[in-house]
Amino acid sequence: MSHIDHTHDREASSWIDGADEHPDFPVQNLPLGIFSLGDGQRRVGTAIGDSILDLSGLSRDRLLPDSVRPALETGTLNALFALSSAERQELRHGVFASLTDRTSRVALLPHLYPSQHCTMHLPFTVGDYTDFYVGIHHATNIGRQFRPDNPLLPNYKYVPIGYHGRASSIRLSGTPVIRPKGQHKPSYSDLPGYGPTYRLDYELELGVWIAGENALGEPVPISKAGSRVGGLCLLNDWSARDLQAWEYQPLGPFLAKNFLTSVSPWVVTAEALAPFRIAQPARPEDDPAPLPYLFDATDQAEGAFALTLETWIATRKMREAGMPPHRLGTGPATSMYWTVAQMVTHHTANGCNLMPGDLLGTGTISTPDPSGLGSLMELSQGGKAPVTLPDGEERSFLEDGDELILSARAVRDGFRSIGFGLCSGVVEAART
Amino acid sequence: MSHIDHTHDREASSWIDGADEHPDFPVQNLPLGIFSLGDGQRRVGTAIGDSILDLSGLSRDRLLPDSVRPALETGTLNALFALSSAERQELRHGVFASLTDRTSRVALLPHLYPSQHCTMHLPFTVGDYTDFYVGIHHATNIGRQFRPDNPLLPNYKYVPIGYHGRASSIRLSGTPVIRPKGQHKPSYSDLPGYGPTYRLDYELELGVWIAGENALGEPVPISKAGSRVGGLCLLNDWSARDLQAWEYQPLGPFLAKNFLTSVSPWVVTAEALAPFRIAQPARPEDDPAPLPYLFDATDQAEGAFALTLETWIATRKMREAGMPPHRLGTGPATSMYWTVAQMVTHHTANGCNLMPGDLLGTGTISTPDPSGLGSLMELSQGGKAPVTLPDGEERSFLEDGDELILSARAVRDGFRSIGFGLCSGVVEAART
Repeated sequence: MSHIDHTHDREASSWIDGADEHPDFPVQNLPLGIFSLGDGQRRVGTAIGDSILDLSGLSRDRLLPDSVRPALETGTLNALFALSSAERQELRHGVFASLTDRTSRVALLPHLYPSQHCTMHLPFTVGDYTDFYVGIHHATNIGRQFRPDNPLLPNYKYVPIGYHGRASSIRLSGTPVIRPKGQHKPSYSDLPGYGPTYRLDYELELGVWIAGENALGEPVPISKAGSRVGGLCLLNDWSARDLQAWEYQPLGPFLAKNFLTSVSPWVVTAEALAPFRIAQPARPEDDPAPLPYLFDATDQAEGAFALTLETWIATRKMREAGMPPHRLGTGPATSMYWTVAQMVTHHTANGCNLMPGDLLGTGTISTPDPSGLGSLMELSQGGKAPVTLPDGEERSFLEDGDELILSARAVRDGFRSIGFGLCSGVVEAART
Repeated sequence: MSHIDHTHDREASSWIDGADEHPDFPVQNLPLGIFSLGDGQRRVGTAIGDSILDLSGLSRDRLLPDSVRPALETGTLNALFALSSAERQELRHGVFASLTDRTSRVALLPHLYPSQHCTMHLPFTVGDYTDFYVGIHHATNIGRQFRPDNPLLPNYKYVPIGYHGRASSIRLSGTPVIRPKGQHKPSYSDLPGYGPTYRLDYELELGVWIAGENALGEPVPISKAGSRVGGLCLLNDWSARDLQAWEYQPLGPFLAKNFLTSVSPWVVTAEALAPFRIAQPARPEDDPAPLPYLFDATDQAEGAFALTLETWIATRKMREAGMPPHRLGTGPATSMYWTVAQMVTHHTANGCNLMPGDLLGTGTISTPDPSGLGSLMELSQGGKAPVTLPDGEERSFLEDGDELILSARAVRDGFRSIGFGLCSGVVEAART
């Protein structure tokens, strides 16, 4: 069951200038992240309006619950997400109280910094990163390019398909996307070559930050899997389609993906998202029921998220002409065929251990129609139908200088909507 | 060029009782590992005969080079393998000098422990684990089961195929192998089910421990890739073949592999292996040459290892009857189609960053004939031809109570052979 409490009250107001009107970070959100100031020291912070509140500093001043103090001193969020959800809830309540009670202002002001003076860092030391494939419209759209009559493979509706990604190349939003080189074998050639990818793509995904730990050998039952979700972020699974096509048989994507994965800096916590839990869309009547280990009535009733996702592009020419980014698509996150809890339970069903700060990607989230496709591979139909941009430029795949921006908002009647911030990256030419 | 020096002298002798006769750990080896005593404190050690020399303790007593002292105090080998090969070479020379010069005996004795009183630990904090597929006979043997006329896929002789594995479930030799559960769809059934795997297998691999670091975006040229190899170990890529068959399309193996990966405790260093570098076997005339980014004449001349690998099994019944383990196979490591340097260069060819303590698996190493097959999937031809053991038991796949043991020895005329120790695990029944 969702835990909706006073911190979600739509009328709740912060004394921070502009926070109540902020599109992403009103006091109902309170996302967690890691930031530094001039001294380079990494601190835990929360975004409030256009400011960042230094929770590590507040904790040292004994203004936050004792239980979280050691975890706020480590320079990453791993230790905080090793604690219980109840302890993070207590932290949330403490921060919320301070930011809504004007009498806390004098005590808090020394710990408040304008966001633009702060440098954000990767929120976790990522032990392992797993990318799923639960966006059924994406799987269908891509599958159709190869198997028009039978786009989904036989296992898709039984198995939450996933594979391991690379942890060392996960970087924060804003990191340049250096066009990778690799082996590709164009269809017109008998022989492969090595050089810069000519089919660089993005993938719109949600990232799931894991909380808590299960010992190796101990699966997480579906009834408890929700508690392992610490929070969400945006994730761009940059992809080199030509490398992917040539390398992926028989063991899956490798160098096509592991040159960079970008995540948004703020962890929108499970606690903040509680009001936005909605029913998992009913499976079509012909679809098989989930196997019992993946089924839980509560998870079906509130295992999905009321999120609206958007993708934007700004080419170098557009930026130089002062044009705003162009929206490539928008769609809901409810096209995930499996819930996040099902992803966690399946991942651990063989006893695999998930650790605090592990990252799961959902896989690309697309719409069945062209309004919200999560990759250029889908938008341009594998390059056959280039997208025309407002300035007349065309794109089949990303070109050097292109900026790609992802955003997400949680929206539900009766609640103050909250946002994720942005996940962006500019493509740079391949290194010579 | 290999760096063979006085530490490889076959006549070199240690004053440690029994070390000169030890099959694995004479003074020419000096493998590195992490061990603890009763106090639980993790120390860097080297195996010498049946003893372990505490290098962390020696260093604190100022008996080792100053340059490595901080790295020996961290409880893992990551910091030591972040240093240069020259610094590890200096450490090797210091340890070798102490162990061959009897006048060091009094100073060293307080830091020598019988191996059986020591607990070994995972040598590195593994950031990322990648499993390759360079054993061409394994790839051919497995491919033939699915495509008898065309066992190798078109990319195999161009691309050192690899995929990401799970770092969190890497454990030391000796860790029980709990039979994993998962989804499988037997050929006689229309529907998948969830339960314990009935096709549990081992895979004989070498593990490559990475030294040094390349920044994200900076490929490692083949001429420098050899210096990124810190050392080797044995690796068992435990596999659930029924889970694998059902889940692996289109993104590769996932839960079939990530429940456990076992490694041997000792890192046989690149410095110790220098005399055992041999020419990479010539490619058959019809095979394509490696693309230029993967070709280096020196690497071809000495990029392979003169190693003999063995696999042994001891069932519960055999152990209860006092029978010794039965050798399932033996073969050379030269059936790797790609060198370790080619694996490193390919992995980083897109700018992917490899970090100290990252682990690469070679993929299963098999022979073209039945004498040295690296998995039961090959030995029993996918279960169709069970293996008969000395006590009359048959095995298509591993059964509860089976112990599986891997070993490796470096052997070359003119040099003292050295061993890797063992990588073993006993299968336990699935958890209820």
